[in-house]
Amino acid sequence: MTKIRTICAVASPQGIGALGTIRLSGPEAVSIVSLLFSKSDKLCQSKGYELIYGQLKHRGEILDDVLLSVFKSPKSFTGEDTVEISCHGSEHILKRVTEALIELGADQAQAGEFTQRAFLNGKLDLSQAEAVGDLIAAESDAERLAALGQLQGGIKLKIGGLREKLIHFSALVALELDFGEEDVEFANRGHLKELIEDISKEIDTLLSSFASGRAMKEGVRTVIVGQPNAGKSTLLNTFLQEERAIVSAVAGTTRDVIEETILINGIKFRLMDTAGIRDSEDEVEQIGIGRTMSKINEADLIIYLIPYQNFNSELIEEFILSLPKGKKLIIGVSKVDEINNYFDFNISDNQILNKYPIVYFSSKTGHHIDLLKVDMCNAIGLDYEALKRGHVISHGRHFDALQKAKKSVSAIMETLKMDGVSQDFMLVDIQLTLEYIGLITGQVYPDDILGEIFSKFCIGK
Amino acid sequence: MTKIRTICAVASPQGIGALGTIRLSGPEAVSIVSLLFSKSDKLCQSKGYELIYGQLKHRGEILDDVLLSVFKSPKSFTGEDTVEISCHGSEHILKRVTEALIELGADQAQAGEFTQRAFLNGKLDLSQAEAVGDLIAAESDAERLAALGQLQGGIKLKIGGLREKLIHFSALVALELDFGEEDVEFANRGHLKELIEDISKEIDTLLSSFASGRAMKEGVRTVIVGQPNAGKSTLLNTFLQEERAIVSAVAGTTRDVIEETILINGIKFRLMDTAGIRDSEDEVEQIGIGRTMSKINEADLIIYLIPYQNFNSELIEEFILSLPKGKKLIIGVSKVDEINNYFDFNISDNQILNKYPIVYFSSKTGHHIDLLKVDMCNAIGLDYEALKRGHVISHGRHFDALQKAKKSVSAIMETLKMDGVSQDFMLVDIQLTLEYIGLITGQVYPDDILGEIFSKFCIGK
Repeated sequence: MTKIRTICAVASPQGIGALGTIRLSGPEAVSIVSLLFSKSDKLCQSKGYELIYGQLKHRGEILDDVLLSVFKSPKSFTGEDTVEISCHGSEHILKRVTEALIELGADQAQAGEFTQRAFLNGKLDLSQAEAVGDLIAAESDAERLAALGQLQGGIKLKIGGLREKLIHFSALVALELDFGEEDVEFANRGHLKELIEDISKEIDTLLSSFASGRAMKEGVRTVIVGQPNAGKSTLLNTFLQEERAIVSAVAGTTRDVIEETILINGIKFRLMDTAGIRDSEDEVEQIGIGRTMSKINEADLIIYLIPYQNFNSELIEEFILSLPKGKKLIIGVSKVDEINNYFDFNISDNQILNKYPIVYFSSKTGHHIDLLKVDMCNAIGLDYEALKRGHVISHGRHFDALQKAKKSVSAIMETLKMDGVSQDFMLVDIQLTLEYIGLITGQVYPDDILGEIFSKFCIGK
Repeated sequence: MTKIRTICAVASPQGIGALGTIRLSGPEAVSIVSLLFSKSDKLCQSKGYELIYGQLKHRGEILDDVLLSVFKSPKSFTGEDTVEISCHGSEHILKRVTEALIELGADQAQAGEFTQRAFLNGKLDLSQAEAVGDLIAAESDAERLAALGQLQGGIKLKIGGLREKLIHFSALVALELDFGEEDVEFANRGHLKELIEDISKEIDTLLSSFASGRAMKEGVRTVIVGQPNAGKSTLLNTFLQEERAIVSAVAGTTRDVIEETILINGIKFRLMDTAGIRDSEDEVEQIGIGRTMSKINEADLIIYLIPYQNFNSELIEEFILSLPKGKKLIIGVSKVDEINNYFDFNISDNQILNKYPIVYFSSKTGHHIDLLKVDMCNAIGLDYEALKRGHVISHGRHFDALQKAKKSVSAIMETLKMDGVSQDFMLVDIQLTLEYIGLITGQVYPDDILGEIFSKFCIGK
């Protein structure tokens, strides 16, 4: 048996602040800190969930006046004995204290190692552990709520129970196999079919949430397009003035596409202003237009702008027909302030246009900018209630596992429909399904998966 | 009476980390947090020095899973009720929680406001409050130890007791004045003289510590000079490789002076490599030399390099005589590795050279670099024992106050030596002395002084 090491790391962000925090976890967390701490008796006798004020001294010199938070196994984040040291927020002091702890036997923690221990000690399942990383990286309300929902065990609650039932059936089917030639049926096929249908439905719901979940996490790639002078840059500026920009000006991958990230109703939108689209002989302009088209291909959402006074349904139809299938689009009729009393165009009969939301707005006066935002959020179709319950998946890892699970579930379903197929086949598919679902919550994990997940964490978490 | 506001601020450094901390202090700290906290009963009933795990919710949405540290007045840093909220270290979450706290009645704390409250509530004197700021800014062992010494009340202990005695005398002298024409003497002049001598001595010790204290805090400005090819840049590189550079390459004020900050034995040295000094017709080179001379004028320490093979005592004498008076200097005889068996030059009779330490060294082999470092630290004359006791002053504010105190103490002394001078004069000087000493520890503070001191703090401290 390997000895469990005691790990330590700075847990607060880098830089100078009022307070800095160092965290230790492991069987010797208390004893190591007690070698430095002025009130070592009090620390050693602590029953946990206690704050102790005192001094850290090393080699006869004071390191700092500190406040210790003491947690005793299993009532801690990692499930192990844990001490958090709150120091003065100087990098020098944090470094000195960490050095002293390491000298006294603690190991420098790897990225995500505290959370990994929480997982290995059964305090969190794997999807919950991933949610901790998501929470720290959260930049928007949507991300925060999704991470918190997942941290509460959203996915586990949604599919964990069904997985338990499937394990039960798997045992019964295995039992049937043990009886070999005898034609016994311990697993009720009707009930099994119902269960498989339920599982299939839940998997579908989760899979369908991925598009909006991924967009929420990475930011909804929103391309503003239209002919020159349609008001694209003006709209971008209006959004930026109204909403808090997370990043003032992200350097685009291409020089001529400007990208800005803003939050609307708690959702991150990566707005891309593009070169105006028109037939052009100018070579440079054509390159710009080419880039616009490639941005459209990658976009989650397209806002097509056309000024009110140039409204031309054929032009819009032409644009729509040029789009890849299934693209989300909002038609924005801009500059309505230039008309005294504008009216909505009658396009209800237009079979192409009437599939998309159309907003009459003015960047200049702010008219209907609110409606445009509502349509933008609606287009993403982020289900906030599902989000809060942790039922929106945003990790590619979860999506892959669920897709594989879906395939094996379909295979079980096929088997159930057929007569005379041996239980062997079904059992293999059931076990595959269990494995794929288990990958998400971590009942099953190949060696490399943990390293891959936790290496993306910051050190100290 | 003004109502005491409850203040809040992020106390951890900016950026993303595993943990982020928000701090509240004031009469409503507990009640405001309880409006958000899932276990509000437990929070409200807490007697302090307790950790409580739970959820913050606002407007029906979870903000984060948090750990609260609860402190009850007067047993807290500020002396007020205090709650520290440990969140996941996302800036978004810290912002949302702070917004919710402010919405519920907390005020955004100003820079240093927590420490200012600790001062105003008598938890720290002013020199201790300043030490908190010094601790956070500490970049070296020396700075940390000086700040900790001061935080333990070093200055207060050194001069506070004497100040108390002087207050006693001041009352007696004032009483003498009340008796007007009657020739009474309540204050024993002999004892008063002794006390004044003691005070004068303590002030002198503190004043004389300022040069090393200031150099320690700002970094010892160390200029490496010498003729071209004396090995200046090589020495700089040797130091950089051996010692941890705090900043890899600080942009100098002048293009041709390279400045690097390193730590030697816990002391920060700002090493400046300079243009070689020689008579030159070249205009650009002359400008460089001019800059070297101006660096020499500002320097705390000069290392004059001369290669062993070019050793020339007259040249060194000439350089020393060109220096401003009182400059600290080390003579470094470089490149001793180029000689098979070098011997020390006999300069014991040289009345100019023998006043300075001389080190024979080689950057190439590392020979005697350790001795050079010892001489560098000795030159600064930092008294580590005094430092740890908080008896080294490093604040210009303290130096100014002590200089003024010294003047008024001298005036008292003069008065005591004379016969027939009215008590009026002496009383004025005693009160001035009390005031100047009181400025340091904050028994006396003009309105603007607090703003000036605490505005330099970071927000959240």
